[in-house]
This record gives sequence, structure tokens and C-alpha cells, in this order.
Amino acid sequence: MSDPSTAPPLTRASVEAAHRLIAGHVHETPVVTSSTLSRLASTQRTPQDLAGTPWAGRAPAAPVLRLYFKCENLQRVGAFKARGAFHALERLKLDPAWDPARGVVTHSSGNHAQALALAARSNGIPAHIVMPSISAPAKIAATAGYGANIIFSGSTSVEREAVTARVVAETGARLVPPYDHPDIILGQGTAGLELLSQATSLIPSPHKTLNAIITPLGGGGLLSGVALACSTTSTHVFGAEPSYEGADDGRRGYYASPFPSRVEAVSSLTVADGLRTPVGRIPFSVITGPRPGAAAVDTEAAQASKEQVGHGGAGQGANPFGRMVAGIYNVSEDEIGAALRLVYERMKLVVEPSAVVGLAVALYNEDFRAMVEREAGADGWDLGLIFSGGNVNLDSLGRLFGKTQQASGT
Amino acid sequence: MSDPSTAPPLTRASVEAAHRLIAGHVHETPVVTSSTLSRLASTQRTPQDLAGTPWAGRAPAAPVLRLYFKCENLQRVGAFKARGAFHALERLKLDPAWDPARGVVTHSSGNHAQALALAARSNGIPAHIVMPSISAPAKIAATAGYGANIIFSGSTSVEREAVTARVVAETGARLVPPYDHPDIILGQGTAGLELLSQATSLIPSPHKTLNAIITPLGGGGLLSGVALACSTTSTHVFGAEPSYEGADDGRRGYYASPFPSRVEAVSSLTVADGLRTPVGRIPFSVITGPRPGAAAVDTEAAQASKEQVGHGGAGQGANPFGRMVAGIYNVSEDEIGAALRLVYERMKLVVEPSAVVGLAVALYNEDFRAMVEREAGADGWDLGLIFSGGNVNLDSLGRLFGKTQQASGT
Repeated sequence: MSDPSTAPPLTRASVEAAHRLIAGHVHETPVVTSSTLSRLASTQRTPQDLAGTPWAGRAPAAPVLRLYFKCENLQRVGAFKARGAFHALERLKLDPAWDPARGVVTHSSGNHAQALALAARSNGIPAHIVMPSISAPAKIAATAGYGANIIFSGSTSVEREAVTARVVAETGARLVPPYDHPDIILGQGTAGLELLSQATSLIPSPHKTLNAIITPLGGGGLLSGVALACSTTSTHVFGAEPSYEGADDGRRGYYASPFPSRVEAVSSLTVADGLRTPVGRIPFSVITGPRPGAAAVDTEAAQASKEQVGHGGAGQGANPFGRMVAGIYNVSEDEIGAALRLVYERMKLVVEPSAVVGLAVALYNEDFRAMVEREAGADGWDLGLIFSGGNVNLDSLGRLFGKTQQASGT
Repeated sequence: MSDPSTAPPLTRASVEAAHRLIAGHVHETPVVTSSTLSRLASTQRTPQDLAGTPWAGRAPAAPVLRLYFKCENLQRVGAFKARGAFHALERLKLDPAWDPARGVVTHSSGNHAQALALAARSNGIPAHIVMPSISAPAKIAATAGYGANIIFSGSTSVEREAVTARVVAETGARLVPPYDHPDIILGQGTAGLELLSQATSLIPSPHKTLNAIITPLGGGGLLSGVALACSTTSTHVFGAEPSYEGADDGRRGYYASPFPSRVEAVSSLTVADGLRTPVGRIPFSVITGPRPGAAAVDTEAAQASKEQVGHGGAGQGANPFGRMVAGIYNVSEDEIGAALRLVYERMKLVVEPSAVVGLAVALYNEDFRAMVEREAGADGWDLGLIFSGGNVNLDSLGRLFGKTQQASGT
């Protein structure tokens, strides 16, 4: 990886520069709407719906939401990760200290592995991918299909990092981490840049700008990059995480009192397998950092707001809009499954569970919905969402939809 | 249904008139391309690939195919059937003998039922839908969700038709059949009209017109309608059927010697459940009828061509281009499963098995591929395909993909 100390500043202008660097290498994926899903998101839930949730007994919120979906499931390698990987490669090519013949290395069993393998092949350089030997055969085959050199390791992070260090020592390859690097963050941010721009032709209201964007939050490359892309605009940015087995480490760290404090380890088997990782150091500092031009975060006010909004929940919904990311919300496994089913049934799009976590927040998280109702009133919000990827094991799809009921309607 | 004897003539001009009638009621669905699938379709298969197929031992064909997919899975109710149903309703409204308050009736457990229910609700009139009591609960719920009055029957066609006749007698509702009526055929044909028009901006070659369109063939409403839409153009039209348990009744009837002869009954449980029905009487007469402006079909020449091309197969591939439909091809269940997997994995689109039968022909039917190679040469063909629908039982998806292997690549 190019030396972080020589990386461009973490600003919207740098995201724009990244966009120019990767043009021609990645797709400008389409932004689509669904009247059915916008209608569902704008339909007040019933008190029965809230039974058994943290909001049981609360009056259901009545937000108005018009949804705009950025289809990164249609991106190359089926995920936004292509953006960061191609940007990292383009940036490396500007680094005189890097020998292309020595290639790149990463440890990943997911979309980043395939993205880096593709970017390396496109540039005619070697890619070494360290994968746990227990990875799904389909993922191994897909990564090998891009011409990468696969090196197996044990499945713990210590084992993977030891093998990666050995590969670096033996080959001189440069490490390209999946999210904790400015070049990766700036590359992923280009998805937000495009979404902002593409939405203007779709938004019916006079302002023509998205009121907000919500993205899934795993390692944080996408969320922090999108926040940078929006940092000089009026668009608020939110994160979405699974709550299962503590996978909402980003939310817990973001709302830690009295100051944000990154949660460094997570061990969750959430169905949203792209979001099992803890938020990275650099992404977390962007996410919780001050938003340019905004008043400094008033921790006391934020805390008061948090207590007010977080009634019945775990403090989520506090809305310190002075931060780069204006809030982080979580959803249950069942809510992810229900959102996934809706996307397949109503939008006819293949997405992976991690991709729908933002939609699940918009549909089911009453803290988020109450915040939108309060902020937007009857005008409602034009809300951008990022379908982060579409790489799913088809043979396990039936299981993924879980116990959620098949819906009916238009 | 409006009296067939007063229906518009079965011409492209009538399809254009139908398109004007249903504008605003149905979506102009997108036409998309996939470089991966076009590349796969243009890749010669190996002799090993052909082992165990009717073409074992033959030299694999080497066609060049650029594919254009019309996404009727994104149509209202998730299938092209919305076109025919809305057109039938618009035509009925022009019939002074029809009392809207008495509504419409059909017997169907599939996409036509939901399409007619939606069209009726949109027009504020009652819809009675006769469904076998053993229908999947999800399908019953979806149809009821459109406000239709569901009447259960036994599952044989005799039982269903008896119940339908009783509903007609009791309510005075007008029967709207799923495919065997000119108004339905003309409505479905509008999908072909749009595909022809939309493809012109996507085709790289100088001629800017699709060389051919291939559609699934069940009852024949779609295939005959698309053939009418193309009848005054240079675009050839082909049909695609499953071979399992004789579901290729259309192909068998089309190539019957010495003259086409409709197969009137089919009993197949092909995975392509929308294509289990025999071709209807009117669709069959369109499909096998003479193409305007073409030389009359020379049965003897067609027969010779059939024997020549059909080597090792069951006579498919005969190519009497003088007919409205230039040929009908079949595929196995495994080939449908493999094509389905490709669409989910590579295009990230949710489609039902019936929707990919044309793609399976383009990828796997060596008679079709040899014909394209012979007709198109090195220039290749720009081939339109219609993803007819996307209504699939998600819980059975894993099973649908069957034993086909997960693919890898770009």
C-alpha cells in the first residue's frame, strides 16, 4: 500500500480526485427507485409490529421517506470493494518506491479479496491473497478465477496476519488492507459521490439533493468515504449495523460516553457476513470527527438528545449532526432477513445480506424513523441507500430468508 | 373478454395500437446487457461439454452473440402478463356490451391471475380468479392482495373450467383467458415492440437493429405477440421451451411433418412452471403462419433443412424463415438451472426459471448456435431475449439451482 503518511487529505476533493483515477476501471452503477419500498418505508408501523422490540409500547413513528438505491451489487466483482482496490492500485502506481513486479497482498475471504485480485490482474501485476483454509470453496474458486495466488492460513486474525507478514517478507508485495487506509476510504467514497450526483435527476422535490444517505458499516471504509463525499454538502450521512452478537461495535463506540471510543474486537456470526469486522482506526476517526462547517459537537446537548430519543432503546438515535456521520443505527437478524426478502421479491435484485442493513434501518428502526419524522416533517426525506454487494451463496438463500413471511401486494 | 371476432387484426400496427392503449398502466422495463454473458454465449463449447447431449460427437458451434435482455421481471406484478391483462381491460372498456360492474374472471394460479387482478383493481372493477385449492399459499395471498375474489376449484382443467363457467353464469363476469385471445397476444407483443426500439441505442454494429429475438414459449401469447411486433422488420423471432416430460409441445407441433400440427395436451412438471401449458390455438396459428413479405414456406425445403440441421437431435433447428416464428428450440432442466444460476450470479437479477429458457438456448443448444454461426458468420448476431418474469418462491431457490456448479470469473 502507498504510505499512509503520503496519502491525500481526507476531504471531498480527494474523493473527487479518486473518482477521476478509477474512471474507466469501475462501473458507474445505476441508482434505482421502488415505489413499493418507498411506500412501505413511509407507512406507520402498528403497535403490534413493535411488540417484542426495544420500542414496544411507544407510538410508532410516521416518517415520509423516498428511497434511492445505489446498486453496487452491479459493480465489478459484485461489490463496492472494486472502487477501493482500483484506487489503491492507481495510487501505488504513483509511488516510486513500489516495484509493480512484486505485486500486492491482502488477507480476506470476502469481496475485497476478489476486488484486489481483479485490480491486480487488470494492471498485469501479481496478487497474493491470504485466505483461511476453511473459506467457502466458491469464494476460493472465485478469487482464484481472477488469477490471484491463494495462500491458506488458519482462521484467527493472528494466524492470518502471521502468514501475510511471511508473504510480504518473501515476495516484497505491498499490503493493501481492506478498509483501514486513506486510499481505500477515498476509493469507496466515490460510490457516495456518484449517488449524490445521479439522484439529482430523480428527486421530485425542488431541492434536488438527497437529505441523507445511509450505508452499511463493517470496517468503515464505505461509511467514512461516503461521509467525506458528502462533507461539503447538505446531505447527512448515517451508518447501519447488525445488532447480533455485538456486531454493532461501530454504534457502541460512536455513542460511548463521554467520548467516542472505538471497539477493537468483535466476534459475531451475523448473517450480514460482510459486517462482522470491527470498524478500523482511520474510518472510526473520520466517522466520529467534526463535520467541516458544522458547530463543534455539543456533547452535553447530544447526550440530552440521546436520552430523549433513545427511550426504550440502547441510546441509539442520538443525533449529533455536528459529526461527520450523524448517527448509527442497528437492526436484528430477522429485520435483515425481512428487508432481504423485500428486495428480492419487489425489486428483483440479488443482494447480499450486508447490503440491506441500511434499508432494514429505514423500515424497522423506530429511533431512525422518529428522527426522520422530527427532522423532515411532512416534506419527508429523500434518502439514498447503498446496496453494497450482491455476492451471496445461492444454495443457502432459502435459509437466509429465515422465518420471515412471504409478502403480498402490488 | 371482448368478442374475438371484433378484435383488431393480428398485425404490427395493432401491437402499436395496443402499446398506446396500455401506456401509463405498465412500465417500459429496462433493456440491459452483460459482457460476461455475451462472452459466454460467444465461447465455443468443448467436446466434453457436449458429452451426454444430443450433440455428442459433433464439432461445437462457434457463434458470435451480443445479448440484450428485456427485463419484464421488473414489470408490474413481476411479469410481462401485466401487458396483456391491461390491454384486455382497455379493449373491454370499448365494448358497449360489457358491464364493468360485472367484472372479469379467469382461471390461473400464476402470473396472469395477479396481472388481471391488478388491472381490474386499477380500473375499479371486480376480478374473480379461479385457482386450484392446492395452489401455493403465497400465490393465493399475492392474488388476494390485489383485491381479487378467489374461488377455489379442483386441479384438473375440467374442474377449473366447470367452476369458471359457474362464476360466469352467476356473476356475468367476462372471461379473460391467459393467452388464447387476440387482445392478450397484442398486449404481450408490446414487450417486443419496446425491446426493438430500446436496443437501437445499445447496438454497436452499424445496422442498429436486433438480428433476432428469442422468447420463452408456454401458452404462446408472448411469442406470437413478439412475432407480430417484428413482422414488418428484419428481426427474426425464435421460441424456447423446456424439453422435460414433453413440455416442448410447441416445438413438436411446429416441426410436425408434413404440416405444423398443434399438440393439444401437455403434462409436464418442468421447473419452468410458467411453460407447462400447451400452446394456444390462436398463438399457434400466428407462430406457424406465413411471415408477411416472406416467400411462402417451402415445406420440402424446410424439411430438407431440418434433416440437415437436426443431425443427432429431434429435428429442431429446422429454420423455415418464411414463417412468423423462424424456429423453436428446447433445453434440459439442467441447462435451465445453469442459466438461472448465471443470471443470479452475474447479472444480480431475480428471475423465474421460465424466464431464462431463451438464454439457455443461446448458451447450450447446439442446433441454435450452429444456425447462428451459419447465418451470421463472423459479424455475429445482436440477439434480444425477454426475461419474462421474476416471481419465484424464494424458499425453494436453493433447490432450483439444482446440481449446477457455482461459476467463477469476472
